[in-house]
Amino acid sequence: MKKHERDNSLPIITLLSDFGLKDPYVAEMKAVILSICPEAHIIDVSHEIEKFNIRMGAFVLASAAPHFPVGTVHVAVVDPGVGTKRRPIIVETERCFYVGPDNGLLMLAAQKEGIRHVYHVSNQRYMLPQVSRTFHGRDVFSPAAAHLARDCPPSEFGPEIHDYALPEFAKPRMRKGELLGEVLHIDDFGNIVSNISAEDLKKMGLREGCLLHVRLIGETLALKLCSAYGEVPAKKPLGIIGSSDFLEISINKGNASKAFKVKIGDSVHVLLNY
Amino acid sequence: MKKHERDNSLPIITLLSDFGLKDPYVAEMKAVILSICPEAHIIDVSHEIEKFNIRMGAFVLASAAPHFPVGTVHVAVVDPGVGTKRRPIIVETERCFYVGPDNGLLMLAAQKEGIRHVYHVSNQRYMLPQVSRTFHGRDVFSPAAAHLARDCPPSEFGPEIHDYALPEFAKPRMRKGELLGEVLHIDDFGNIVSNISAEDLKKMGLREGCLLHVRLIGETLALKLCSAYGEVPAKKPLGIIGSSDFLEISINKGNASKAFKVKIGDSVHVLLNY
Amino acid sequence: MKKHERDNSLPIITLLSDFGLKDPYVAEMKAVILSICPEAHIIDVSHEIEKFNIRMGAFVLASAAPHFPVGTVHVAVVDPGVGTKRRPIIVETERCFYVGPDNGLLMLAAQKEGIRHVYHVSNQRYMLPQVSRTFHGRDVFSPAAAHLARDCPPSEFGPEIHDYALPEFAKPRMRKGELLGEVLHIDDFGNIVSNISAEDLKKMGLREGCLLHVRLIGETLALKLCSAYGEVPAKKPLGIIGSSDFLEISINKGNASKAFKVKIGDSVHVLLNY
Repeated sequence: MKKHERDNSLPIITLLSDFGLKDPYVAEMKAVILSICPEAHIIDVSHEIEKFNIRMGAFVLASAAPHFPVGTVHVAVVDPGVGTKRRPIIVETERCFYVGPDNGLLMLAAQKEGIRHVYHVSNQRYMLPQVSRTFHGRDVFSPAAAHLARDCPPSEFGPEIHDYALPEFAKPRMRKGELLGEVLHIDDFGNIVSNISAEDLKKMGLREGCLLHVRLIGETLALKLCSAYGEVPAKKPLGIIGSSDFLEISINKGNASKAFKVKIGDSVHVLLNY
Repeated sequence: MKKHERDNSLPIITLLSDFGLKDPYVAEMKAVILSICPEAHIIDVSHEIEKFNIRMGAFVLASAAPHFPVGTVHVAVVDPGVGTKRRPIIVETERCFYVGPDNGLLMLAAQKEGIRHVYHVSNQRYMLPQVSRTFHGRDVFSPAAAHLARDCPPSEFGPEIHDYALPEFAKPRMRKGELLGEVLHIDDFGNIVSNISAEDLKKMGLREGCLLHVRLIGETLALKLCSAYGEVPAKKPLGIIGSSDFLEISINKGNASKAFKVKIGDSVHVLLNY
Repeated sequence: MKKHERDNSLPIITLLSDFGLKDPYVAEMKAVILSICPEAHIIDVSHEIEKFNIRMGAFVLASAAPHFPVGTVHVAVVDPGVGTKRRPIIVETERCFYVGPDNGLLMLAAQKEGIRHVYHVSNQRYMLPQVSRTFHGRDVFSPAAAHLARDCPPSEFGPEIHDYALPEFAKPRMRKGELLGEVLHIDDFGNIVSNISAEDLKKMGLREGCLLHVRLIGETLALKLCSAYGEVPAKKPLGIIGSSDFLEISINKGNASKAFKVKIGDSVHVLLNY
């Protein structure tokens, strides 16, 4: 198997978590990484994932990851099951490595790149000498990422597994002329990001310029599928393929999530023969 | 024209935006930068600018920029007009480069340093292959900054322009014995930062130790122009030249913006012959 | 005296403050550091310390610091006395350097590592040419840290002192069969972190599996001292030795600080012969 070839001088490790930035936890992870791999270039993806919201974490990771160079090591920790039997895993894809809990968090990003192998991190040689039961981000995932960044082969960390968790929110479903999706993320501007991809819409013959009929929180909205916010008047809703290639429901110069009172996990149905 | 000479080993790129830290957007910009310029040292100036508040973004950038080494590339994105005809620009100053939208955001900082040239970024060779209409921060500004950091000459990016936008909040005005300024920023401690500079006050003969008469939200305040917060009793208001060299209205061990219910853009008038 | 030997290529400087991330202040500190020491690897510990809360700052610093490599320079700024006569200091410990105000902030971390020397930073050669009276983080502490990272000996910065401030919250006290501690920190998950260490509990014969009787806000709680949150049912309180080696009071899948309405500085008493 060909090794990922990094074309840059410094290995890149990204971090994503629901830890927030107030506490020492993120810095502790960085300290552990730099102790093992002093040359690492550490980039924060987000630490403001809603507590325990695996769906939102998976979306944010899947949005950011494709832009990073080949060979990047992504660490993600949204981990309500820390201290229980859920496994720490490494996912090797066609482009990158992912390190985190086996709860679906890593898989939206990894599936987009193509999964090669998944390993159960169990070799204590690559963990901190004392593994706490409350903070695997620091004691298990960070050391694993740092060793990966130093070119330790992923198979060294433990046995390959095939029964890893896959997220149920990864793909929308078709049912009787409706495409059944859900809200993956609400961004800081209030844009409502669904799990319906540009490709899903294309398959159904829906292109920019079309009128979409979308059912959201019991309401049916007729939305123009725009290519820029400014195609509708200020304060009017629209559909748009966002920068992550998913259908977003937005309000030009306004906040769609506040206007429609939508939250992550709510359903987004596109009606096809309306 | 002499090139900016960097005296350090790593090129520095700074980032400022109104994106917040929850979403993947900032990480996507960093990923794009590192893909083009792996040796870049990326420093966040702030991503907590109020949404679409160009005035606040301009102030924060102008405060931070002078402290960075010669040759630094500053990227700033507060960009309500993304996807419309507003131009992406590069500003070359006597010290540094600025990359962002042509809406005045960059100019408070650039004017302080002396503007040499302004270029309209239009050469697609230095953009991502697919430019979205919602996220020029990632697709246009970040690649431009990374190429600048790799010593690509700014004139390569597009034609020089002279009709760039200048912010109307850049300078206070004199009128009938009043100096008419406005609130540029309210910091996290509640200090109210005006656009009246130390030099503006000096020209009018106002020095530390003077009593200032300031009209703010319909009230006229008599404030000592102090050199340290502790020169007035706790909970009392004062004037002070802040660390950005602008007049600030503060409360010793208190929160001035809450006490006076002031917001960014409100007027701050200094009465001269009171 | 043997110099701290750094085993990595880049010097590490960490930053902690109560500045928040909205304002230009943190970036200004980084700009000053990189101007003096371009090769510095700067890591944020936290900038979300509650304004002026020295106790919380001391805890967060003491939690993060032990994980950083030998020779790291830690800068911490929670500094209600800026501009008054409180001294700027450098603390040299058995592992690292600490730079900040002489108000106890640095000492919880420094005492854990063993204090070698404390110096009063007074040599203006290692400050910015203009020292403001409102922002020593930028004008005094950051340049000192950058010069330390470039291997300038700490005794160069000013005279050694012995009358430095020690925090009164550093250690819990024993009184009539009670261990009198207090709340050092409340983390983003709502965990209540006390200043009672794993060792304090061990000395009193309290181990994992024991029942603890804790008095908190007038209530006496019977808490199992657990080794993982999941040892009690969801929504039930527990005691646990957290990742910083202090006793924490938590609620499994819940928010203890909201449930008990506790704030930093409140007392936490462990009753020994209940």
